[in-house]
Amino acid sequence: MVFEVKKADSRTRARLGRLHTAHGTVETPVFMDVGTLGTVKALEPRDLVETGAQVVLGNTYHLLLRPGPEVIAAAGGLHRFMGWDGPILTDSGGFQVFSLAKMRRITEEGCRFNSHIDGHEFFLGPKESMEMQRVIGSDIAMVFDECLPYPCERARAQKSVEQTLRWAKASKECPHADGQLVFGIVQGGVYDDLRRHCAEELVKIGFDGYAIGGVSVGEPEECMYQAVEASVPFLPEDAPRYVMGLGVMHQMAECVARGVDMFDCVIPTRIARHGTAITRRGNVAIKAAKWAFDQGPVEEGCECYCCRNFTRSYVRHLLACDEILGLRLLTIHNVHRLNRFMAEMREAIAEGTFSEWKEQTRKETTDNE
Amino acid sequence: MVFEVKKADSRTRARLGRLHTAHGTVETPVFMDVGTLGTVKALEPRDLVETGAQVVLGNTYHLLLRPGPEVIAAAGGLHRFMGWDGPILTDSGGFQVFSLAKMRRITEEGCRFNSHIDGHEFFLGPKESMEMQRVIGSDIAMVFDECLPYPCERARAQKSVEQTLRWAKASKECPHADGQLVFGIVQGGVYDDLRRHCAEELVKIGFDGYAIGGVSVGEPEECMYQAVEASVPFLPEDAPRYVMGLGVMHQMAECVARGVDMFDCVIPTRIARHGTAITRRGNVAIKAAKWAFDQGPVEEGCECYCCRNFTRSYVRHLLACDEILGLRLLTIHNVHRLNRFMAEMREAIAEGTFSEWKEQTRKETTDNE
Repeated sequence: MVFEVKKADSRTRARLGRLHTAHGTVETPVFMDVGTLGTVKALEPRDLVETGAQVVLGNTYHLLLRPGPEVIAAAGGLHRFMGWDGPILTDSGGFQVFSLAKMRRITEEGCRFNSHIDGHEFFLGPKESMEMQRVIGSDIAMVFDECLPYPCERARAQKSVEQTLRWAKASKECPHADGQLVFGIVQGGVYDDLRRHCAEELVKIGFDGYAIGGVSVGEPEECMYQAVEASVPFLPEDAPRYVMGLGVMHQMAECVARGVDMFDCVIPTRIARHGTAITRRGNVAIKAAKWAFDQGPVEEGCECYCCRNFTRSYVRHLLACDEILGLRLLTIHNVHRLNRFMAEMREAIAEGTFSEWKEQTRKETTDNE
Repeated sequence: MVFEVKKADSRTRARLGRLHTAHGTVETPVFMDVGTLGTVKALEPRDLVETGAQVVLGNTYHLLLRPGPEVIAAAGGLHRFMGWDGPILTDSGGFQVFSLAKMRRITEEGCRFNSHIDGHEFFLGPKESMEMQRVIGSDIAMVFDECLPYPCERARAQKSVEQTLRWAKASKECPHADGQLVFGIVQGGVYDDLRRHCAEELVKIGFDGYAIGGVSVGEPEECMYQAVEASVPFLPEDAPRYVMGLGVMHQMAECVARGVDMFDCVIPTRIARHGTAITRRGNVAIKAAKWAFDQGPVEEGCECYCCRNFTRSYVRHLLACDEILGLRLLTIHNVHRLNRFMAEMREAIAEGTFSEWKEQTRKETTDNE
């Protein structure tokens, strides 16, 4: 069994679950930390354990360019390469090909593009993506898909969904690593009937889990929830559901209420490097001069290494001087904050108080987001 | 008692010692890690403990500019500000004023200069330096001095030594933090009689320890040892001796053989950030393409966190991608390497095998330095 629903909330679609992978069990709902190039930026594996991280996400596109499949294969896969023996999920690389690379040509087989690093030419389609994910040895592989931009006209969205479905089928038929789960991706933009169609066709192919893609690409918040609501009812209850690229606390809570189990986002690590802390009450620019003398922790009551040991005054000083330790401490805090947020969410579902918890935290967390 | 000689080597001037400070006892010979702006770059206090670091060096000049005395005072001193409860040594700031700042005017009272960060005007002399070191609350404060360049004519050196002696006397007469030790600094360039004169005059004033300054400023290696040999015989046996700015392994061993107990240098942390590992057999550019597939650790047999957990292939990949984790792992390794080197040196002195150990390690370590 890949996924168990341990408890379903009585008033929402939220569920407490367990996802079994080749490198351990993941308690859901879960936020996954993005380790683009084989490291969650500025953190090492022991930091991930300490901050309560469960799953690391690796980016197939980035790892294909650097260090390349040969180096990862020589190490025996990404787990051994980066020293992380917990679960790893890899995306397909499609999103980065469409957003970062200089595209040359798209065909039924995939995309020819130039690396954004050195212009080197690559080809990535379902076959190449699945092969790279097999070499990486991720516990969860994502099918190769096209992530639609927002806004997107219906005709374009419809054509893209059909392409995504053909690529999903082709991806599933490729060889996988031992024990590797494969997730399909529901696309369809803001068109409910396309979302339903895509979900139903993916379920016919049959996957270990289902992502809802093309969300958090610049659309209004309501469209995000609509995309989830248009997809979830047509996905199996006994498979995990994953909204890609989402990491804002109250938005994750709203998606969980609509039946989603998994999330990932670069936000917590990226904004840390720009001097911003995620707190229960909203984002705080710790670099601001007003904290120069502040003897409190980055977040009151937080149990992370940063908050237990250092003051806002000190972290602010480090950030003002571009000291690596400053962004590292904030990264530790932000990752801990989101992992702790998900842990509290799981506790609330377990205790049957999810709706109250969601309302309470929403009030607290939307101040400055 | 500030300093105990536990064992004197029978064939050299090397000695095994214990330096007692307000924040703990330091086993000597010791290498001190440079924490310029209130952090050993890329490391946190727990890393320092893990790598065997005993003393952190703070730079008075840098801390005066950022975050400034008010912020450090608000935290209750540098120990609490940076979360390090071990010994801290502060330099006087003189070296940076003369080497980094845009100098405006030097008088008997000190130097008027412009900050290298934002051009803001400051004044630093013995009085201001000792006051800043008092606010920092370092366990060991250094007197304000002039560090002579190499080469330097005799007349200039002589005049500077007299200035340094007057500043040393003025520094000693300033108020200090509770339990703060104060070290004098022997200057005199390459002139043996000036070194002797400076040492003798400093001893008359009376300090808790004595540094040998103006060493490792670009002079030939022999001049470095000569400066030590010209100073040490005129310094008390029961006080620690400190060569400032030196961190090359075989050079430290040679200085210990000549009676030196303490060292500091930015080299291990700086070259780590440029992708170079210090190993027993010399420096290794881990960023080099030849390590792309290498499954060995950065240094065979090393017990640091980096070498126990990661391969050259992985660290090289991180460095090639400018990932923070790469320079952090190499910093951990380099700091551990030098601290381990000093620990081995102490063991050799304790066992009466220092000379053999020095010859053996010299053969090994000078390959590529």
